Amino acid sequence: MVLPSTAQYWRADVGLYHRVQQFYAWQMQLLDDGRVDEWAATFTEDGVFAANAHPEPVSGRENIAAGARAAVAKLAADGLVRRHWLGMLTVAEQPDGTIKARSYALVINTPKGGQAAVHVSTSCEDVLVADGPDLLVADRRVTRDDL
Amino acid sequence: MVLPSTAQYWRADVGLYHRVQQFYAWQMQLLDDGRVDEWAATFTEDGVFAANAHPEPVSGRENIAAGARAAVAKLAADGLVRRHWLGMLTVAEQPDGTIKARSYALVINTPKGGQAAVHVSTSCEDVLVADGPDLLVADRRVTRDDL
Amino acid sequence: MVLPSTAQYWRADVGLYHRVQQFYAWQMQLLDDGRVDEWAATFTEDGVFAANAHPEPVSGRENIAAGARAAVAKLAADGLVRRHWLGMLTVAEQPDGTIKARSYALVINTPKGGQAAVHVSTSCEDVLVADGPDLLVADRRVTRDDL
Repeated sequence: MVLPSTAQYWRADVGLYHRVQQFYAWQMQLLDDGRVDEWAATFTEDGVFAANAHPEPVSGRENIAAGARAAVAKLAADGLVRRHWLGMLTVAEQPDGTIKARSYALVINTPKGGQAAVHVSTSCEDVLVADGPDLLVADRRVTRDDL
Repeated sequence: MVLPSTAQYWRADVGLYHRVQQFYAWQMQLLDDGRVDEWAATFTEDGVFAANAHPEPVSGRENIAAGARAAVAKLAADGLVRRHWLGMLTVAEQPDGTIKARSYALVINTPKGGQAAVHVSTSCEDVLVADGPDLLVADRRVTRDDL
Repeated sequence: MVLPSTAQYWRADVGLYHRVQQFYAWQMQLLDDGRVDEWAATFTEDGVFAANAHPEPVSGRENIAAGARAAVAKLAADGLVRRHWLGMLTVAEQPDGTIKARSYALVINTPKGGQAAVHVSTSCEDVLVADGPDLLVADRRVTRDDL
């Protein structure tokens, strides 16, 4: 019995998988804590953030930071706490040394004094690059399930 | 202070745990992408899929594929995107070489143009077998929390 | 490009990260299965459980068990199945040998015969200590997003 080739493709070793997993956890915490500059620093200088919810991809760390800063300010104005959950992660090292990571991302919103609920369900495709012992996002594509 | 014996039981080493974790992520992505044949190929030829939502367990890869194909077609007809999240995973190697895995599975539905929400919450008990470097599901029992 | 110091801080090695991850999965399963004594045994004898939903921290394994026993009984009386999902985990070994772990925790409630839904979204900060090959919670701080 031969498994489809995608099985072989998504077979990152345990060390790399762990590295990506802990990187994502830390990255999402930074964003949800409103630490926008530290969060934006997890993208490459010329990183790209594309989302089917936005007409154009955002390019460059400064622009990515500006977008996040606006989003964090709006959440605060709306009295919402947001949590980004990332899961069902598959990781593959590419021949050029970059790392491809595919995951699901669930956004949970809680109004202060109100009821937590799923806000949106998405999938996320990243190209990551190593930066010493750390990782940086070179390219992120977020696809909302509702659009 | 002695921990209960279940602690010793659920003490898979990091390599096996990782293998199961990445296998599940890949397997759920296949199903949610509607790649039914590849998904069904992650079960053994004589695999069993039992669920308290169904009167009878489904036996054999072909029958498991047929059930998934019908479910995927119904989701498309209903205009729903479905995501299976699997988490809180405990893994134990059995004396006979098979692998027991217990997890929670959350199903998130998003109608096109609509609001994402939790569909059902379940727990999942699998018996996995190694197939070279890959894993196959020999037996899956899914228990919906609402039933 | 220098990443913020928090990146260096949250850089547990794969072995420790795995240990915490599997510990949490097992611990949540114990609680949700109503196995209160085994669950309470995953805290140190003088463990502390603090939550912004409660006026006072609960101290000592016996008191922590009593609180959980009451919660489990209330869920049963209300006909609810509860699942604790823990994710977005960052782990750091402290100079004193203890382990700091930060995570998100999502509580999913399902009424028997009813609709599963997110109950509350929280963040969780733990101090863990090694107990032979196992881990124990010395201090847990749970912060509900709605409060």
